[in-house]
Parts: sequence; structure tokens; C-alpha cells
Amino acid sequence: MRYQDDSLALHTDLYQINMAQAYWKDGIHNRKAVFEAFFRKIPFGNGFAIFAGLERIVDYLKNFRFTEDDIAYLRSTDNYSEEFLQYLSEMRFTGTLRSVREGELVFGNEPLIQVETSLAEAQIIETALLNIINYQTLIATKAARIRTVAGEDAALYEFGSRRAHELDAAIWGTRAAYIGGFDGTSNVRAGKLFGMPTSGTHAHAMVQAYRDDYMAFKKYAETYKNCVFLVDTYDTLGSGVPNAIKVAKEFGDKINFLGIRLDSGDMAFLSKKAREMLDEAGFPDAKIFASSDLDEYTIFHLKAQGAKIDAWGVGTKLITAFDQPALGAVYKLVSIEDENGEMRDTIKISSNAEKVTTPGLKKVFRILNKRTNKLEGDYITMYDENPAEEKRLKMFHPVHTFISKYVTNFEAINIHETIFDQGRLVYELPCLDEIKKYAKDNLELLWDEYKRILNPEEYPVDLSQKCWDNKMRNIEEVRQKVMRFEEE
Amino acid sequence: MRYQDDSLALHTDLYQINMAQAYWKDGIHNRKAVFEAFFRKIPFGNGFAIFAGLERIVDYLKNFRFTEDDIAYLRSTDNYSEEFLQYLSEMRFTGTLRSVREGELVFGNEPLIQVETSLAEAQIIETALLNIINYQTLIATKAARIRTVAGEDAALYEFGSRRAHELDAAIWGTRAAYIGGFDGTSNVRAGKLFGMPTSGTHAHAMVQAYRDDYMAFKKYAETYKNCVFLVDTYDTLGSGVPNAIKVAKEFGDKINFLGIRLDSGDMAFLSKKAREMLDEAGFPDAKIFASSDLDEYTIFHLKAQGAKIDAWGVGTKLITAFDQPALGAVYKLVSIEDENGEMRDTIKISSNAEKVTTPGLKKVFRILNKRTNKLEGDYITMYDENPAEEKRLKMFHPVHTFISKYVTNFEAINIHETIFDQGRLVYELPCLDEIKKYAKDNLELLWDEYKRILNPEEYPVDLSQKCWDNKMRNIEEVRQKVMRFEEE
Repeated sequence: MRYQDDSLALHTDLYQINMAQAYWKDGIHNRKAVFEAFFRKIPFGNGFAIFAGLERIVDYLKNFRFTEDDIAYLRSTDNYSEEFLQYLSEMRFTGTLRSVREGELVFGNEPLIQVETSLAEAQIIETALLNIINYQTLIATKAARIRTVAGEDAALYEFGSRRAHELDAAIWGTRAAYIGGFDGTSNVRAGKLFGMPTSGTHAHAMVQAYRDDYMAFKKYAETYKNCVFLVDTYDTLGSGVPNAIKVAKEFGDKINFLGIRLDSGDMAFLSKKAREMLDEAGFPDAKIFASSDLDEYTIFHLKAQGAKIDAWGVGTKLITAFDQPALGAVYKLVSIEDENGEMRDTIKISSNAEKVTTPGLKKVFRILNKRTNKLEGDYITMYDENPAEEKRLKMFHPVHTFISKYVTNFEAINIHETIFDQGRLVYELPCLDEIKKYAKDNLELLWDEYKRILNPEEYPVDLSQKCWDNKMRNIEEVRQKVMRFEEE
Repeated sequence: MRYQDDSLALHTDLYQINMAQAYWKDGIHNRKAVFEAFFRKIPFGNGFAIFAGLERIVDYLKNFRFTEDDIAYLRSTDNYSEEFLQYLSEMRFTGTLRSVREGELVFGNEPLIQVETSLAEAQIIETALLNIINYQTLIATKAARIRTVAGEDAALYEFGSRRAHELDAAIWGTRAAYIGGFDGTSNVRAGKLFGMPTSGTHAHAMVQAYRDDYMAFKKYAETYKNCVFLVDTYDTLGSGVPNAIKVAKEFGDKINFLGIRLDSGDMAFLSKKAREMLDEAGFPDAKIFASSDLDEYTIFHLKAQGAKIDAWGVGTKLITAFDQPALGAVYKLVSIEDENGEMRDTIKISSNAEKVTTPGLKKVFRILNKRTNKLEGDYITMYDENPAEEKRLKMFHPVHTFISKYVTNFEAINIHETIFDQGRLVYELPCLDEIKKYAKDNLELLWDEYKRILNPEEYPVDLSQKCWDNKMRNIEEVRQKVMRFEEE
């Protein structure tokens, strides 16, 4: 039997459904649970990450339900009782979701999204939530690195669909790249779905089809006003560039000769030579586009060598986040209702200090220095704290606690928005260009030392005293419990 | 305006549609063109790759059409004439597609798929075809490497959905991993869509929810017959393993105590200690499952240190192909109809010898030595050649042509299947388990030296003399043309 509907409710790990049935059988499936998603390390050794994925998550949660096909499939595995399947078939997302906005700067060890809902629901949605934010946040961050290096004036296009990890990655990845600072995409479907600017003229195949640079460029110019000619099919300087110039001269004002694209060979050498040829031919405004396995490092070094490149098409290395293709965001239970209806904090211990989770429902405040209008760091508190009430804030390192500083004259901005309130969508999704602008504005608040692409300064993400004390108390509780068990 | 249908026809690069209109305007859009897709280098430094993606391609081509929404979107860009949009709205895939089977062993520089259709159609489908085969082939190959190292007896599960590049990658990637040798997946949707075996029991969250290993394991055992307990939430050897044993003893025959899962800490040390504890407690058949950022290298070294691990859950490093997250398959025009209706071969030149394309429609023969029943290499010919007619086959290196060998007593197997014949689907898609078996059977034909995961011997992929002569002729033609242009 083949199931063909595209329900996403089963887009989860089997253990989530198995745990849900165990909870259901034990009658604790409706206990309120709080999960927080966070990553520990910023990818690419970058100084910040840019959050993306919320729009897709909203769509997923809004439409969350097990279809008849889903239930039929689960029944076929002989692993679930009919009563439990009935319960699943009625499950909707009824919880509260708080999240940072798309385009928000985010850092290690701070909750990006918080889910407060029934224990069973919260488990089942984990996999899809992480699947979405891990990838989209990774690509938005990678794009921001490339924008940092390319500079504000350069045009940056995402060209990587053919190397993306299947179809969803091509479109959601290019949307994330746009949020992170890119100007457009080659993917037409992304243009349609997200209203993104699209970019592209012709490929080598067109030159091959006409067996000739000149004929191909001419035919393109007969069809389109805006022309960028790809010049490296046979011989960049011997045939491609001269023929581009020839066609540009022949067509004169009938076309906008925007420039040429280089797709192979040494970009520094070729771009300088091509620049000279274009200038000498009377086309000083024609731009040089480059595309060929580019990333932030290649762009950095090409620029350092004085390459005459005005626009960059970045494919594989961006859309696959080639040098670190996974963000490790995890989703951890931080608090759960007990048999008396009280919320009790929970912890996950590890022999590695950085991996011990921080218990309890929390808030993340971004501490903005009002004098400099730059960020001092993030300050994580228990949910009932309000650092805005304090005159002088003590911020200390959450692992090396003896490293600390005091901040005065600050604004403390809660970076979480309520997206769903007890199942009801209460957040209005901003349009994509607002998100992109939000990311750019946020980056203005960050000191340059956090934006260096190599070995940036570490942005402080600190715990309040109360939050730290609560963590220590939880660690001690577990330690006592394990010791008691070992003595038995 | 937001377009919401999920048509995939626009899942292409903008330049494909722009070229199509230029061809259409020039009246050459219906000329027959032959494109071949191939990659140059096998990923991960492996000795072979395993092809995957055909099922998804068949679905894409069968349903290929521009919807009204697609056309409306293209119209909104003011880039296309109404007549051209009308032409697009009627476009279907009317061509012939030949492809190697899913599960086929494939190597560098040999056509994996061949598209023979109108020039315009062939361009527009390029992006999606590459997007699909690049990712799925990459993951099938990565999975095969992990299977090579884990050995035939180990159980291997794909657990990486949360780190996959968006949703499609999670499901199509895990399907590819199954083809490459994995036993199952944690992704329930993949289980439903592809009939794959699924695997999973419980997470740390369940232990945290009960605040206690013992209670969590007990509740799991009350719900399920088959139990694998995750033992590292608080303290693997101090609490996790002893509590797993305690529950297993208490429940006795009421459960199948399949074993325990380790998810953090030193797997070599912990697995040996846990093995001793399980054996001493009278559970010599309980298995040890491991999961924690594993890949073929970690598994290799853990096994070398005598780790007592029976089953491996592999996530991030597999589903993202972490050490090389892109396969670079390209799609090149090799032949096109001229104004007289004759097919003429085409070439793409590069200053890098390995990047010069091989012109013309070709066949790929796998040369099986009948004495050894092992493969001698692949032999690429022009479409009208038949090496089976030859007694003694000369195989020479396609770049270093002085390296050659003669093969006798061989079988020459054409590895391409016709999938679509002039738009009609003529291939019956095999079921997933047949594909998996096909991959495994094929690997039996390969000498061990090609299967080493580090520095394997290079498998020969050679050109026939005729194919090589044709390539040289095409290079010379282009050279003459560029020289003539430069002399002008």
C-alpha cells in the first residue's frame, strides 16, 4: 500500500510517538511541559547567527493534524492501541509558542523558541521544528557572512538550487539567504512563493546551442533589453569578452548592456583583463559578474587581490553551508507539571559543562547600552525577573563565572514574541522585506569585533544570578539522587 | 499577491526560462537536443558512488506542467510575451529519458541520465533533475561507506531528520540511505511514504519527565514489548545501565529487553563497561545501541578499539553528508539538431583538461570479467558502438591515454534503462527493497580495493577510440574557430 497525501504530522521521529503513547497510557500526556530550543555553538566560527524558519513553523503548526492516511499507517505497524490512535487523530497544536523573530540576531545557549503545551504534543512537534530552524538559521547566517565580506555595494545572488539538499532546501534556503543579506535568487519558484527578486540570463548551453558566442549573445539581445553575457564557454578573453563587446556595440541603445559573467578560470586575473577590455571599448559602466564555487573566503581573497568584480553569484557553498552543513540546535525539556499541578524544573546532566542544560522557563533580554546604542550582551533570566528594574546589571560568564562586568544606563529588550497563545495564532507574520531589513538593522547594533568572519570576539550570553542558582540547585538534586541510588 | 500551489515547474533557474524564450523567439526551441548529467569526482574520496533519485525524477517529469499560477507569476515579471507564456502553459515533458537504475554503482565522468527532447524543455528541467540526483546520490554513497565500515552484521539506522536541510532532505535522504545500505529510519513519514522500517524508543525528555531513569524505563516497559532504554540522561554507568537492568529483571518475560542506547560520553569505554554489566546481570543477548555524532571514521575507530556496539544510529553526519555536503553533477549539452535536421555534437572547453566535456550521445558499458565475475571498468562509447562484438577490448585512460589494458572474455553490460520514450513512461519503478538489493548485489562485483574508504584504487572509466577521436575533433574545431576570430 502506498500513502500519497503530504501530511507533515508524521514528519517526526518514531520515538516521539512511542513516548506519546507511553505518556497517554500513564495518563500524563496532558501535563503541561515547557521545551526550549537552542544551539550551543554559532556555526562557521561566526560571532552571531541570524534566526530563520518561523514562517514555515507557523504554517506547520497551524495545519498540524494526523490525516486518516497517517492513522492508517500507524495502525498498520501494530504498535498502537485504537484508543491512542483516536486520541492522535484529534490532536491539534493547542499550546503557546514563543519565538525570536526571523532576522533576529541569536547566540549560543539562549532559547530561540519556547513551546508550552501538553507533554505529548510538545514531543511530537520537536523533530519538524528543529529540522526547520536548524537549516534556515544556518543558511541565513552563512549569507550574512558573505554579505559582510562582499560589502554593502556588491550585488549578491543565490544560485545554488542544483546543489541544494533536495527541493525544499533550494527554496527555503534561498529565502533564508535573502534574510541574511542576499539580493535575490535564481530559483523562480522561490520568486513566486516568496516574492523574492530573481536573477539570471543564460548558460553555456545557449552558446553551445548556437555553436558560437557571437550568435548566442546576439539572439539573447534580440529577445531581452537587459543583457549579461556569459563569456567562458570556449575562451573567455579570446572569444567571450570580445564577442560580448561586439554585440553591445552593434545593439547600442537597443539593449542595456549590464555586463558579463565569468564562471571559470582565475577570477582575479580574468576580471582585471575583462575590465580593461570593457573600459577601452567604451563600456565603463558594464559590470562584471562572477560565479564559480564562491564563498566568503574566496570573495575576501579576490577582493584583496583587487579583482574587478561587481556582483557575485554564490551557489553550492552557500546553499549547502559547505564548511559546516549542520546547526546543532536541540530541544530540551526545562519544566514540567507534577502530579499536584505544580511546574517543576528539569535538567539534563552531561560530563561536559557546556552541555548541562539550564532548567526552567526563561526570558532572554538583549542589553542595549543607551550611550553607545550598541549591544552589551544577552541576559537570560527566570521568567518572573525583570532586569529593566535594575539600575546596575551584573553580567557574568555562565561557565567561567568569575568573568563579569557591570552595565548601567541600559535598555533590556525581551527578544521573544508570542506566536501562538493556547493554540491561537496571535502573531502577524511580517513580509520578507521587513524581515530582511530587521536583520540589517540589528546588525547595526553589533560592534564590529563580533562581525569579523575569522576569530570574532565572543558575544556575552549570561545568566542572571537567580537563573544560575536555580541551575546549581537542580544539578545538586540530581547528584544526590544518583548517589542515593548507587548506595542502595 | 501570494501564490500557494505547489507546482514544481518553476523549480528551475531563471536563466532556463529566459533561454527558452530566446530559443522560442528564434524558432529553434523545438530542435532536438541531447543533454547528459554526470559528476566529475566521486564524493568523500570514495571508490564508487551509488545512484539515487530516479523515482522522484519520474514523478516530477510525469507531472511536469506550468499551472495558471505559474503563468500568472511569470506574466507579473513583464519579461515574457503572451505567446511564449501560452507555449509554456502547454509544455509537457515529451522527450526520452535514459537513466541508470537507482542503486547502480556510478563513477566520475559517465552519463547518469540522458535527456533527448526539445531544446526548450531540456533546459527548463535541468535544475530540478540536478537538485534531485545530486543530493540523493550523495547520501546513498555516504550510507554505503558507513555500511562498509560497520560490516554486514551491524544494525544501522538513520536518525538525522532534525539536522537535515529542510523537510524534503529528511525523507528523500533517509530513503537514499536505505538504498545505500541502512536498515531503517527514525522518520515516520518516510516509513509511511516509502514503506521503510522505522526505529526508535524514547528520548532523554522521557527520563526528565519522570525525573528518574527507573520510572521512565518502567513506564516504557508497561507500554511496549520491545524495549531499548536510553541510559545517559543523568549518569550512564551510575544510574542508566543499572536501572535498565533493574527494570529488565523486574519485567522478565513480559518484555523483550533488546538492549540499551548510549548517546554521549566515550562510546568505547562506556560500551565495554555496559557490556560487562549486562553480561553479569544475565543479559548477554541485550544489544548496545550507540548514537552520538557518528560517521564512518568514528565507527571505524571505535571498532578498532574493541567497542562493544551492536547497532548504530547515525544522524547529522549522514543526512547532511557532513564532510562533503555537495555532489557536483552537471548537465551538459552534448548534441543538437542543426538547421538541416542533422544532429551535431557540441563541446564545452575548459583550461582544465578534466573539465572538457565529451561530445555526442553515448553509451556506458560495464565490463564484467567472466572468469573472475568482477568488474574491469566502464567503457564509454558513441551511441552506435557495440563492444560486445569485440573479442579483445582496449581500455585506455581518458586523460593519460598512454595508460591502457586489454580485456578478453568479458561481458559488456549497457547500464542505461529507457525511462521515458517520447514522453511516455515505459519503465516500471522497482520497489525500494529491490533497489536496495540491487545496490548490494552490484557491490559484490567490485574488487575490495575500490571499496576501501580511504585512498581506494581508481576504478577505470575509459572512452572508446571512436569516442576519444570525436572529442579531439570537436576540440580542434573550437580551437580553429577561436583562432579565426582572434585573427579578424
